[in-house]
Amino acid sequence: MKTLAAVLFPNFELLDFAGPLEMFGNLKEQVRVLTVAEKAGPVLSVQGVAVTADLSFAECRAADWVLLPGGFGTFPEGANPAMVGFLQRASAAAEQVMTVCSGSGLLARTGVLDGRKATTNKAYFAQCSGEGPAVNWVKEARWVEDGKFATSSGVSAGIDMALAVIAKHFGEPVAEQLALLTEYEWHRDPAWDPFAKAHGLAG
Amino acid sequence: MKTLAAVLFPNFELLDFAGPLEMFGNLKEQVRVLTVAEKAGPVLSVQGVAVTADLSFAECRAADWVLLPGGFGTFPEGANPAMVGFLQRASAAAEQVMTVCSGSGLLARTGVLDGRKATTNKAYFAQCSGEGPAVNWVKEARWVEDGKFATSSGVSAGIDMALAVIAKHFGEPVAEQLALLTEYEWHRDPAWDPFAKAHGLAG
Repeated sequence: MKTLAAVLFPNFELLDFAGPLEMFGNLKEQVRVLTVAEKAGPVLSVQGVAVTADLSFAECRAADWVLLPGGFGTFPEGANPAMVGFLQRASAAAEQVMTVCSGSGLLARTGVLDGRKATTNKAYFAQCSGEGPAVNWVKEARWVEDGKFATSSGVSAGIDMALAVIAKHFGEPVAEQLALLTEYEWHRDPAWDPFAKAHGLAG
Repeated sequence: MKTLAAVLFPNFELLDFAGPLEMFGNLKEQVRVLTVAEKAGPVLSVQGVAVTADLSFAECRAADWVLLPGGFGTFPEGANPAMVGFLQRASAAAEQVMTVCSGSGLLARTGVLDGRKATTNKAYFAQCSGEGPAVNWVKEARWVEDGKFATSSGVSAGIDMALAVIAKHFGEPVAEQLALLTEYEWHRDPAWDPFAKAHGLAG
């Protein structure tokens, strides 16, 4: 059983969070989902919908897996010592760390991704990659894996990354079954990235 | 400005709700999102993540648009007079009513879809369509529109339906821009449905 800490903060992007959580949350026998934030309680997304954080950072003991969504809130959170400290501590303890969209920029800001390959969303690529000058940013990728770190492109790319992580840990048929049940057209190829082209980042 | 009432109930499916809300919630100038449930406060999804309902059914005045997600909770909710009454009242007043996955079965149970074309998820098609024997159920469709009703197939199909509804009301470029920003591969064709085949509902 893996414990997954999904991180919330004001102005997180709803689908960055809920896409992967749809997949992980359906694996009742394999994954225990916890939502964490600086303070427990409701946290408002960019989209105006509030999600409850089960635990504060202080209450969250080491998790096996960490999921960090993006959203405009990632930029101010990069200057929040509580968030930065939690991400450094949780990343060091976890066996699998995942980011979506501008969540990659926030994690990069903590130094945890220095020297690693990573990607982020393509609509705000320069801004997000600027958060981590020592990261080897990949411009054209749906998601990138480097050791225990999996970083994805924008918003819905988090779903493909989550399915890839599930396939890696629990086998491809488990991920396939989830995609089938949720009627999701899973992009299995991390190099599939029409959005890099659309946003002028690839030829 | 359209007011959208997104309905919550215990054991709703997280992505049924959050996929469309990602799209509607990003249209700050055009759509005002309200979450409603029998009682205001946190409502737990099948996936173990709680979303806050802003308003109780009693507090929710007529909304322009209604979104009803699916999830295993739809089956007991079909026998809940508070839910059935709200859906009947809200559907009568709204100009656009949307359902995702087994949410179609729940709406069908209220009688509101009688004589209409509709679809639902393909993994539990017999069970969901059984909730509305007087509905003209379509077995092979990503989503179906009939007058003010838009009903979608399972889970992630709600995102395609939401983008189609946005295109209908606000123009195709607005939906295209949302899909681009969220790096979502929008399926624009309501007849695109590989999952009907995968679940043995189409040849």
